[in-house]
Amino acid sequence: MASARRILLLSSSTVHGSAYLEYAATFIKDFLKKSDVKKILFVPYALKDHNDYTNKVRGPLKELGYAVEGIHEAPNAIEAIKSAEAIYIGGGNTFQLLKTLYDLNLIQPIQDRVLKDGIPYIGSSAGSNVATASINTTNDMPIVWPPTLTALGLVPFNINPHYIDFDPDSKHKGETREERLSQYHEIPGTPPVLGLREGAILHVEGNVAKIIGVFGAKLFKPGCEPKEYNVGDDVSFLL
Amino acid sequence: MASARRILLLSSSTVHGSAYLEYAATFIKDFLKKSDVKKILFVPYALKDHNDYTNKVRGPLKELGYAVEGIHEAPNAIEAIKSAEAIYIGGGNTFQLLKTLYDLNLIQPIQDRVLKDGIPYIGSSAGSNVATASINTTNDMPIVWPPTLTALGLVPFNINPHYIDFDPDSKHKGETREERLSQYHEIPGTPPVLGLREGAILHVEGNVAKIIGVFGAKLFKPGCEPKEYNVGDDVSFLL
Repeated sequence: MASARRILLLSSSTVHGSAYLEYAATFIKDFLKKSDVKKILFVPYALKDHNDYTNKVRGPLKELGYAVEGIHEAPNAIEAIKSAEAIYIGGGNTFQLLKTLYDLNLIQPIQDRVLKDGIPYIGSSAGSNVATASINTTNDMPIVWPPTLTALGLVPFNINPHYIDFDPDSKHKGETREERLSQYHEIPGTPPVLGLREGAILHVEGNVAKIIGVFGAKLFKPGCEPKEYNVGDDVSFLL
Repeated sequence: MASARRILLLSSSTVHGSAYLEYAATFIKDFLKKSDVKKILFVPYALKDHNDYTNKVRGPLKELGYAVEGIHEAPNAIEAIKSAEAIYIGGGNTFQLLKTLYDLNLIQPIQDRVLKDGIPYIGSSAGSNVATASINTTNDMPIVWPPTLTALGLVPFNINPHYIDFDPDSKHKGETREERLSQYHEIPGTPPVLGLREGAILHVEGNVAKIIGVFGAKLFKPGCEPKEYNVGDDVSFLL
């Protein structure tokens, strides 16, 4: 089943000094070409204003040659998923996003379309988080409470988007990202977490996974030293 | 009932360049003097290693003249709360802390001791978060799943500990703290959030609340511009 999946998970929609999706444009085009996509179903649930968010995304994707439909514009969200050529779930608040996917009964339809039918799935930030095993490793504030933190499970591990290394000059005493992830891994049975730096992209085709994009990733596993993976590295062992 | 409460909520246990609780030492002594406290019941549930954490806290508090008992060392946690002279809940992971308080049925006993009996409550970071209406405005990762985000409600608003202003030089594209809090306030019915900068302390005596410590706070309310409060300012209107 899982061998049909085609997934592109962006750490962030933007990197410093460039416009929305600019750094990712060629990666998105390359990825969607293979499935001959003309229209993308955009899921704006991670932010409050769905129209505004969809309009923001529409411009850059139109320039790449894709029409964009906001899922909230469709008469029926489940039917929109069932007929989508490709799905793009944008960033924002991960809790709000996952809660809305559960509230609207969209989990199973998305899983079916991606894992069985093999339509392309693109996620960015919160949209990458919800594609994984769970959102236990989001950076976001729990502004709402979804029924569970279990997510779409399109890949069997977790992601930490916007991964950032410890700044030795910082005077801030809040936990570092690495400390937070190591606290997660103190809990028995937790999956590996791929810390995607801003600009890093995880590309999955069936049972092959690779780091692409413009920056690398750091992998955290319970009881192990974190390990660096660079652009171009194969991380299929995570699948 | 609430007029009995005596509460000291620290944004953080430490500020840059000083040892554990060092910046807060005189505030803690002043606060506990009034209740003639000799022994503090320490709640280490926000971190995994309870012994290690309690030992870390014991030294600095012993220097201030207090004996420290770890709640996990007591034969019965509920009885330990019932007989405590003062409670100190330390920082770590807020989700783990709140889940453990629920798992061990300690919510009501702590509420009773603080709101009815008037014993002093000290919180730091996660321990300050759980003292408020809810932990919806924690900065922590949801590494475990408490039954609800509703917290002790010793005060009727929320806190964001380790509050940090936007750094205009940052290249990081993750949401700023202020953006995260404003996303929270887009949800109807959410309470005010007091962003306590590291070094800021909220001191509550009955129906009087004041900012003390070495740094100020920023107050966020739905539909309002954030407002600064400095050390010495009265914020009793929040109660």
